Amino acid sequence: MSEVLYVVGHKNPDTDSICSAIAFAYLWNEWKKKGILAQMKMPELEAVPVRQGEPNAETKFVLEKFGFSVPEMMTDGAGKKVALVDHSDVVQSVDNFAQAEVVAVVDHHKIGDVATPNPICFVNLPVGCSATTLKFLFDKTGVEIPKNIAGIMLSAILSDTVIFKSATTTPMDKTAGEELAKIAGVEDLTKLGIEVKSKLSDVSGMAVRDIIMRDYKDYNMSGKKVGAGQIEVIDLSLIEGRKDEIYNELVKMKQEGGYHSIVFMLTDIMKEGTELFVVTDEPALIEKAFGKKIEGKGMWLDGVMSRKKQVIPPLEKAFAG
Amino acid sequence: MSEVLYVVGHKNPDTDSICSAIAFAYLWNEWKKKGILAQMKMPELEAVPVRQGEPNAETKFVLEKFGFSVPEMMTDGAGKKVALVDHSDVVQSVDNFAQAEVVAVVDHHKIGDVATPNPICFVNLPVGCSATTLKFLFDKTGVEIPKNIAGIMLSAILSDTVIFKSATTTPMDKTAGEELAKIAGVEDLTKLGIEVKSKLSDVSGMAVRDIIMRDYKDYNMSGKKVGAGQIEVIDLSLIEGRKDEIYNELVKMKQEGGYHSIVFMLTDIMKEGTELFVVTDEPALIEKAFGKKIEGKGMWLDGVMSRKKQVIPPLEKAFAG
Repeated sequence: MSEVLYVVGHKNPDTDSICSAIAFAYLWNEWKKKGILAQMKMPELEAVPVRQGEPNAETKFVLEKFGFSVPEMMTDGAGKKVALVDHSDVVQSVDNFAQAEVVAVVDHHKIGDVATPNPICFVNLPVGCSATTLKFLFDKTGVEIPKNIAGIMLSAILSDTVIFKSATTTPMDKTAGEELAKIAGVEDLTKLGIEVKSKLSDVSGMAVRDIIMRDYKDYNMSGKKVGAGQIEVIDLSLIEGRKDEIYNELVKMKQEGGYHSIVFMLTDIMKEGTELFVVTDEPALIEKAFGKKIEGKGMWLDGVMSRKKQVIPPLEKAFAG
Repeated sequence: MSEVLYVVGHKNPDTDSICSAIAFAYLWNEWKKKGILAQMKMPELEAVPVRQGEPNAETKFVLEKFGFSVPEMMTDGAGKKVALVDHSDVVQSVDNFAQAEVVAVVDHHKIGDVATPNPICFVNLPVGCSATTLKFLFDKTGVEIPKNIAGIMLSAILSDTVIFKSATTTPMDKTAGEELAKIAGVEDLTKLGIEVKSKLSDVSGMAVRDIIMRDYKDYNMSGKKVGAGQIEVIDLSLIEGRKDEIYNELVKMKQEGGYHSIVFMLTDIMKEGTELFVVTDEPALIEKAFGKKIEGKGMWLDGVMSRKKQVIPPLEKAFAG
C-alpha cells in the first residue's frame, strides 16, 4: 500500500477549506494515475482529504447535497506528509507543523510563512477562492472534473465570493463557476448561492452572544478599545426578531469590556449593504467615519459588505483624528 | 504610460535567473494584452526584465547567441513593484526588500521566506529549472513562445540541469527542452548544451584562487572546519594544466584557514563523475566517507556530480563518527 498524503485546509474550516481538500485529493490521485506526478518527480502518494475542525452548517449542507461524507478530522501533522489548501500560514495549519512534510500548496490568499526544505508544487492565484485555482489546475493538466466534485467546487466559489458580490471576486471566478455549474448540472447559480449562503443565515437556534462572537475582533484605535463584529445573512428579515436582543447585548458587552465603541455589521448579501449597529462614547466620531447620522440603533451603509476593506479603514482614520 | 513591473532573478545571477526574467517579462506583457491579468485582477503593469549582478560568461554567450542585450542592473527594490523569478528567499532578493511590492513569483526551488500582504500569483513547480515552470505557464495560458525566447529558455534548462544529467532533472524538463528546441530551431540539444556549459569551463585566464572560490563553502562538521569547493567542466582535460596549481593552492588555504580538511570537486560533466582533491589531517576519515583510497591528489568518484547531495552528506556522517 502506498504512503498517504493528507490534504488539509485551515483551522476553523469554511466551505472552501473542506471542499478544496476533497477536490485536490482527487486531482492528486488523478495526477498519480496519469503520470503527472512522475513527470515532476513528485512523491507518488495516495491523497486523502482531512479537516482541522467541525464543518459549519453551510459546509455540511454542501457535502450532503453533492453526496460526500464529512472528511476525517486530523489536527496533528507530526510525522505526516501534507498538502495544504486554502492557506499558507503556519498558524492556520496543522499542529506540530515543524514535524510535518509539506508536499504541495494550492491557495488564493496572500503568501504566508510556510517554507520548505525541498522544491514543491506551490500554486497560488490571486482569485476569489481556492476552488478557482484548482479549476485552473484540473483544466491545465487535462483532468476531467467529476459531476459531484464540480458541485462542491462551485459551492465553495459561491460561498467565498458571496455569490460573486465580494470585492475579492475576479472574472476568473465567474468563468470557473459557470463552467463548473454546467458540469454539475446546476442551472441557476444564484439560486444555489442563496441556498448555500442561507445556511449560516439561520440564527434562530443560536444564543445571542454566539451570534455576535461568530466573527468578532478587537482593535486598538489610537489607544481606544474598539470591537467590530459581523454577521452576513441572505436577507436581514431573517434576523429581524433578534435585533433588539443583539443591540442590548452589545450595550452590555461595551460596559463589561471597557470599550470606547462597538460596531456590529448586519450585512444583507442580496441587498449588498450593511446595517451597522453602533454603541459608543462618541457618536460624532462614528458619524464622521461613515459620513452618516446615527438613527435608532445605528445606520444603513449601502454597498458596504467588507469589514476589512470598508469598515475598519474609515474608523481608524476617524480615531486617528 | 503604465507603471513598471521589474522582473528580477536572484543575486549572483546564473543563466536561468537572467533568461527566465526576460521570458517572464515577455509572458506578463502578453498576459496584459490578452486580458489574462484582468481575469485575475492582477495589476496591469508593463514588465521589464532586470538583473542583480554581472552576467557570467555562459549567460553572456546565451544572450548573444539568441540576439538579446543584457538587461539593466537593478539591485534596490525600494518603492518598486517586482516579480521574482528563480528564488523566493528574501536574502537572495533585491535590497530593501521590505519596501518593495512583490506582485508575482515563478520558481522551481524550495519555498523560501517571501511573504506578501496581498494575494499574488505564485507558481513554483518541483522541476529542474525556472524556465520549465515558465514553459508550463506559456502553454497553459495559450501564449506562443517566440523563437528567440525559446532559445534562451532552452539554454537555461540545459544549464540548470547540466544537459539533463543533474539529479534535479525531471521528465518535464526534458519534454520542455525538446519542445523549446523545435521552436528555437535547435537540432542538437546536446551540442548546444555542451556549447553553453563549456563557457564556464574555460578557466585559462583565471587566477587559481578565483577558480577555487567561484563555488566554495565552509562547513562545521562535528566541530571541525571543513571547506568544500567545486568546479564543473565539460571535460576535465580542459583544466589538466592547472591541476598542480589548484592542489598547491588548496594546501596553502588549509594552513592559512586552520582547516581540518578541504575537498575540491573537479566535476566532469560529460563523464558524469568527479575527481575529488583532498587535503586533510585525517586521510582515513575521508577515505571512510567515500569508501575509496586517496591516491595522489585524491580520488575519482564515478557518478558523483552534486556537492549538496553526494559529497557533504557522507562527509558529515564520517565526521560524526
